[in-house]
Amino acid sequence: MTLSQRTIGVVTGGGDCPGLNAAIRAIVHAGKRQHGWKVIGVPDSFSGLIWPEKCRELTFESTRGILPLGGTILGTTNSKDPFAFPVVEAGRTSVCDYSQRCIEGIRQLGIEALIVIGGNGTLAIAERFARCGVNIVAIPKTIDNDLQCTDVTLGFDSALHIATEAVDRLHSTAESHHRVMIVEMMGRDAGWIALYAGTAGGADVILIPEIPFKIESVCAAIRRREALGRTFTVIAIAEGARMPERDAAGSPLPKAAPGQAAQTLMHAIRERLQKEVRVTVLGHLQRGGTPSPADRILAARFGAAAVDLVQRDGYGQMVALRGTKIEAVPIAAAIDPVRLVDLENDVLQTARAIGINFGDES
Amino acid sequence: MTLSQRTIGVVTGGGDCPGLNAAIRAIVHAGKRQHGWKVIGVPDSFSGLIWPEKCRELTFESTRGILPLGGTILGTTNSKDPFAFPVVEAGRTSVCDYSQRCIEGIRQLGIEALIVIGGNGTLAIAERFARCGVNIVAIPKTIDNDLQCTDVTLGFDSALHIATEAVDRLHSTAESHHRVMIVEMMGRDAGWIALYAGTAGGADVILIPEIPFKIESVCAAIRRREALGRTFTVIAIAEGARMPERDAAGSPLPKAAPGQAAQTLMHAIRERLQKEVRVTVLGHLQRGGTPSPADRILAARFGAAAVDLVQRDGYGQMVALRGTKIEAVPIAAAIDPVRLVDLENDVLQTARAIGINFGDES
Amino acid sequence: MTLSQRTIGVVTGGGDCPGLNAAIRAIVHAGKRQHGWKVIGVPDSFSGLIWPEKCRELTFESTRGILPLGGTILGTTNSKDPFAFPVVEAGRTSVCDYSQRCIEGIRQLGIEALIVIGGNGTLAIAERFARCGVNIVAIPKTIDNDLQCTDVTLGFDSALHIATEAVDRLHSTAESHHRVMIVEMMGRDAGWIALYAGTAGGADVILIPEIPFKIESVCAAIRRREALGRTFTVIAIAEGARMPERDAAGSPLPKAAPGQAAQTLMHAIRERLQKEVRVTVLGHLQRGGTPSPADRILAARFGAAAVDLVQRDGYGQMVALRGTKIEAVPIAAAIDPVRLVDLENDVLQTARAIGINFGDES
Amino acid sequence: MTLSQRTIGVVTGGGDCPGLNAAIRAIVHAGKRQHGWKVIGVPDSFSGLIWPEKCRELTFESTRGILPLGGTILGTTNSKDPFAFPVVEAGRTSVCDYSQRCIEGIRQLGIEALIVIGGNGTLAIAERFARCGVNIVAIPKTIDNDLQCTDVTLGFDSALHIATEAVDRLHSTAESHHRVMIVEMMGRDAGWIALYAGTAGGADVILIPEIPFKIESVCAAIRRREALGRTFTVIAIAEGARMPERDAAGSPLPKAAPGQAAQTLMHAIRERLQKEVRVTVLGHLQRGGTPSPADRILAARFGAAAVDLVQRDGYGQMVALRGTKIEAVPIAAAIDPVRLVDLENDVLQTARAIGINFGDES
Repeated sequence: MTLSQRTIGVVTGGGDCPGLNAAIRAIVHAGKRQHGWKVIGVPDSFSGLIWPEKCRELTFESTRGILPLGGTILGTTNSKDPFAFPVVEAGRTSVCDYSQRCIEGIRQLGIEALIVIGGNGTLAIAERFARCGVNIVAIPKTIDNDLQCTDVTLGFDSALHIATEAVDRLHSTAESHHRVMIVEMMGRDAGWIALYAGTAGGADVILIPEIPFKIESVCAAIRRREALGRTFTVIAIAEGARMPERDAAGSPLPKAAPGQAAQTLMHAIRERLQKEVRVTVLGHLQRGGTPSPADRILAARFGAAAVDLVQRDGYGQMVALRGTKIEAVPIAAAIDPVRLVDLENDVLQTARAIGINFGDES
Repeated sequence: MTLSQRTIGVVTGGGDCPGLNAAIRAIVHAGKRQHGWKVIGVPDSFSGLIWPEKCRELTFESTRGILPLGGTILGTTNSKDPFAFPVVEAGRTSVCDYSQRCIEGIRQLGIEALIVIGGNGTLAIAERFARCGVNIVAIPKTIDNDLQCTDVTLGFDSALHIATEAVDRLHSTAESHHRVMIVEMMGRDAGWIALYAGTAGGADVILIPEIPFKIESVCAAIRRREALGRTFTVIAIAEGARMPERDAAGSPLPKAAPGQAAQTLMHAIRERLQKEVRVTVLGHLQRGGTPSPADRILAARFGAAAVDLVQRDGYGQMVALRGTKIEAVPIAAAIDPVRLVDLENDVLQTARAIGINFGDES
Repeated sequence: MTLSQRTIGVVTGGGDCPGLNAAIRAIVHAGKRQHGWKVIGVPDSFSGLIWPEKCRELTFESTRGILPLGGTILGTTNSKDPFAFPVVEAGRTSVCDYSQRCIEGIRQLGIEALIVIGGNGTLAIAERFARCGVNIVAIPKTIDNDLQCTDVTLGFDSALHIATEAVDRLHSTAESHHRVMIVEMMGRDAGWIALYAGTAGGADVILIPEIPFKIESVCAAIRRREALGRTFTVIAIAEGARMPERDAAGSPLPKAAPGQAAQTLMHAIRERLQKEVRVTVLGHLQRGGTPSPADRILAARFGAAAVDLVQRDGYGQMVALRGTKIEAVPIAAAIDPVRLVDLENDVLQTARAIGINFGDES
Repeated sequence: MTLSQRTIGVVTGGGDCPGLNAAIRAIVHAGKRQHGWKVIGVPDSFSGLIWPEKCRELTFESTRGILPLGGTILGTTNSKDPFAFPVVEAGRTSVCDYSQRCIEGIRQLGIEALIVIGGNGTLAIAERFARCGVNIVAIPKTIDNDLQCTDVTLGFDSALHIATEAVDRLHSTAESHHRVMIVEMMGRDAGWIALYAGTAGGADVILIPEIPFKIESVCAAIRRREALGRTFTVIAIAEGARMPERDAAGSPLPKAAPGQAAQTLMHAIRERLQKEVRVTVLGHLQRGGTPSPADRILAARFGAAAVDLVQRDGYGQMVALRGTKIEAVPIAAAIDPVRLVDLENDVLQTARAIGINFGDES
C-alpha cells in the first residue's frame, strides 16, 4: 500500500460489449492491490457524474464473479452527452450543457483521475473533458473495431465469435435449401466485423462500406458458384454497405436507403436469379454473452495499463495494443477519423486471395 | 443379413433443422446393419422423386461424419408440393400435379417403403401419397414442435438452445442500457419456442399466439419491474403473437399486421413509457448449427423405430415419443390440427407461477 | 399474499450440478409470489442447520441473475452427513450424530418445511429426517440420472451436453491420428451418461457398468472398423465399467481395480493391436457451466411443483417427471436401489440397432 | 490460370489442432484460384511421401465444408520421423532412414515445393529436408504457442477457448464445494496455455514451467483467500510445472516426478490445509473442436502467405505473424530453442498486477 492513497473513477460509455466487466475488474484489482487506491464506479456513462450520490465504491466484493459476464455492471448509455444533455420538461425535450455539473461531481467525489472505457463517441466526450482539465485515461472499446492507433479494440474478438457462429449456422440452411443467405452485421462506417466474420465463416461474398458493391457483380458470383454445382451462397454484409453513387460513365445511380442494403440486395437477387433469398439481421446479439479469452486478456492488459498510466500521470492518453505491446497514444489521435478497412489490409487481401468476392468486379 | 433385401427411400421435407442428418444416419445404419436393406436418398423433398436419376444410394461412407452437422445432406424445400408443383414456362408459373411422376419414380427406383422426415406440410403430402398406395412411415420434425400425438418433435430442443442463448445474451445489453429488449422467435400459430426459451432464459414477459396480449398489460409489467428497481425488461415474443380482436365490451380493436406484433409493441412501449426499446429477430439462426444431445438421441430413436416399423409393414404411421417410449401413431392424426400450447400446459403454468407475465392481465 | 405466511427452507446437497440455482430461484419466486412465504437458504447441505445463524433469507434480490449460473449459491457438500458428522478435534476425526442439532436449528429458524434438492445420498438423509418428523419435500438432482421413479433427474441433460461435446472434440484427434480415443465419463454404478453421450456423440463402443465388457470383444470391434477403412475408434466408458468376473466356463477372471477400467483397456488395446490409444477423463468438467435449456425448464417445473407440494402438505414426497407431467412419489421409493440402465432400455436398444458395440459380443 | 502450372504438396505434422483444415483449404483456394496450381495432399505427415501412391490431389470438392472442422483431413502423426522411421519386422522395432524415399516420392509426384504445417518437431524435420534440397515453406502450428519469431502459432487461440471454458466450469464446483480445483493444461516446457487461460478464466494461482513454484507459497495464497472469505481457489497448472531444484541455501529439494506436479500439489494442499482438492486434466480436449474465428483467419492468412512465398521461391522460410503483418522468417530461427514465457512478458506482468499468484513468493 502506498502512503498517498489516490481516488480514481471508472466510466463505461456507449454501446455495451463483452469485456467491459473484465476491464472494470482488472482496474479494481490493479488499482487496489498495487497502489491501495480507492476506485469509484460511475453509473451510466458520464451521466452518473451529474448525480455523484449515485456513484459507488468498487470493491473486491462488488466486482466478484463479473469476469465472465457480458455487459457492464456500471450501466451505460449512448444517448446522454453531458455537453448536450437531453432534458425532458413538461413533455418537451431540450438540451443542456451539464459538463460543469460533471466536473463538480468529480470534485465532490474526490476523483483525481477518470478511466474512461469507450468508443468514438464516448472518447470524444472524454477528450473534451480532458481539455477542460479533467485527468483522463482512456481504454478503447467497441465491437466495431474502428478506433485509430490500436491494432484492435476491446469487444471485437467476442463480436467476431457470435457473428462467425451465425455464419456457420446459416450455412446449414443455405446448403439444405439451395438458398442465398444474407447475414447483416454491425458496421455503419467500417466493415471490420463483416470482413473478419465473413472470412472466418467461409462466406462467399463480403460487402463492406469501404468497397461499394454492384448488384450485378454479386449476381455474377452466385452464377459462377451455380456453374460449379454450388447451389447456395452465403453473403456477409455490413449494415453500412452501399452501392456506387455513379456508374462508370459518371451518371448518378439509384440509391438504397441507408441501412437497407441487405433488403435491396435480397429483392434484386430474387428478381434476377429466381433464387430463394433470406436475410438475417444479427443486431444486438453481437454485443452479448461472455467475452472471448482474447478479450478477457485484452481487458486485463488494458485495465492494468490504464492504472499504470494514471500512476505515471499520463493523462489525455489512451492505452492501445501495438503488436504485442500495450502503448499509450493521445486520445485525440485515436478517435478521429473513424478507422476504416484499408484496401491494402492484409485480411482483405487474404480474403480476395482465397476467392471471396467483394461485389466490386466489373 | 436377411435373405429378402428390401429397398427403402428417405425424404426430408420442409424447413431444415438440426437433427435431420442424425436421423438419416440412424436409418442407414439400422436399415443396413440389422436388415441388409438398400437405402436410397431422395433429394430436395418429394421433388427428387420426379427425377429418379438424381436419387443416390446412401451408404456408410456417404453418411460418414454427418451426425453433428446441421441441415440435411439430402436437401429440402418447403415450396414444391408434387400435388401442385410450380412449373415456370416462358416466364409464367403454372401448377402441375406431378404426384403420378413421383409414384412412377418410386416404382423405377424399386422403393418398397418411404421414410419421410417432416413437419405439418410435408407429412400432409406424405399422408396423401399413403392414400395413393405408397408405403409411408413418418418421422416428426419441426423446430415449431406443433405436431399432435408426440411429446416433442425432432429439432425443437436444438432450436431451444439457440433461442435461450439469445435471451441470455440480450440480458447483458438490456441490463447495461436499462432497456426493454424484445426478441422475436419462430412460431406463427404455436408459441412453443417462445414459451420454452423465454422460461429457460428468464424472460420477464412471454407473448404467444395462444394468449392474445394487451399492450397495457405489458407496460404495466414493465412499470412494476421499475418500481422494484429493475430498470430493464426482456420480452420473448412468438412471430405469431397477436392482440385481442375485440375489447372487453366487444368492440373491434385495431390490429397489428401479421408478423408485426414485435414492431407494434416496440413503438407502443417507447411512446407510453419513454423507454429505450430494441427488437431482435432470431429468424433462421434458430434452424442452424449442430443438434443438441437430446435431438441426436431422439433422431437415433426415431430413425431406428422407423426402420422397425417398415420391417413390420406398419405403413401410414408416424413414430412418436410418448413419455419414455417410442410409439406408432396414424400420420393423419398427427398433422391436423396444429398442436397449440394448451392453457393448462404444465410449463405455461410453471412460468406463471414463477412470475412470468403473458400480457393477459387486465 | 396469503394471510398465513409460511417459512420454508431450501437445502442443496451432494455433488453440485447445473440447474441448482435455477431451481432455487424458482422456489423463491413461486413461494414468494404465489404464497407470500419467507424462504430461507441453508448453506452447505444439511450442515447449515447445525449453525442456524449462518442461514440467510433468500430474496428476489439475492437470487437475481443466478438462473444461468452453474453450481449452487447455497454451497453444498457430499461429505457431511448430520447423522454421522465428522468432527476433528486435536487432529483426530470422530463421528457425531448432529441430527438433533439440525432439528433444533429448523425449529429456531421457524422453518415449517424443507425443500431438499439432492441425489441418492442427500435424499437418503432427507428421508431419515422425514422419519424424525421433519416436513420434507424433495427434488431429484444428480448428473448420474440414477434415481428411481422419475424419467430424468435435474442436471443430467447439462452433463450430457458437456460429455457429448467432448466426444465430438475427441473425434478430430482420433481421426487425424488414427487413434483409439477412450473417454471416461461419470457413472460408478449406472451408465446413463456414457450411454446417452456415447450415442449422441457417435461413439463406436460404449462400456457401462450394467454390461460387463470383454477386452477381446472391444478389440474385435476395432478390427472390424479397420477392415472397413476406419482407422480410428472412439470409446465412451463409464468410470464404473467392469469386466466379467468369471469366464464362460465359470472360472474367475483377473479384475481391473475399481475405476481402472479405462487404463486397463488402454494398455490391452495397445498391446494386442499395436494402435496408439489415449485416455481422457472428463471428471469435474461434467458438473460445471450453465444449465441447458431443458434443465432450466425442469428446474422451474420441479421448483414450482415442490412449492405446490408444500402448500398441500404433501410431505415425505419427491417431485418427479413422468412423461410430460410432474408427479409426486414417496422419497423412499426413489432412492433405493440406484436406478440402473435396464437391458431393455429403449436408448440402449437403439444404440445397438445403429451398430454401437457394448463389448459383450462373444 | 497461369501458363506454367506448378505442383505443390501439403503436409500436416505433429499433434493435430483446430485450424489445420482451414489452412489446407486456404492453400488450395489461393494456389488454384490465383495461380492455377495443382495441390497434392500428403497423408500422415512426411510418412505419406514414402508411399506416393497414397497421395491425393486436393480439389475444391475435396476441401469443401472443412473450414469449421477440427483435426486434419490429411491425417498426421507425431511418431514417424522419416530420418529415423520405426519399422516393425518380426515383432522387433528398428529404425530406418527413409528420407531418400521421401525425396524420391516428391520427385515422382512432381512436387516442386512442399508447404509444411507443423510445430517444433515437424519443422525440424522440414528444415532437414530443406538442407537436402527440398523446396520447403513452413506454417507454424501448435497449441503450445512455443515457436520463435511469430507472435502466435496456429491453434493456440482455439486451445485457449477450451481451456478457459474449463476454468469457468470448474469455478462453479470450486465455489459450491469450497474446494481447491487444480486444472492441468498442456505445456511441457512453455506455460503459454496455462498463463493465458488462467488469466482469462480468473484463476487465482497459475503455475508454469518457467517459474518454479513452492508448495508453501501456493498454500499461503489459499490461506490469504480464506482470510478474505473466499473459501475456494482455482489453480491453472501447466503439465511441465515444477518445483525449485534447490532451496534458498542451495541444498537439493525433493522432486516431483515429471508430469506429476498436479498430483503432488493436490496431496500437499490436502495435508497442509485439510481442504478438499480435486485435479482435472484437460488433455486431448484442448486439441479438438471447431477453430476459433481468430485461428480461422490466421489459417487463411498463413495459407495464402505460404502460397505467395512459394510463388516467390522464398524457400526455407516460415510465415509468421509480427504485429499486424505476415512476414517470412528462416525456419531454422523459429524452431530452436523452444519459445518460453519471458519473465518480462506483458501478460505475465498483467496477471501479477491483478493479483494472480505464481507460487514464487517467499
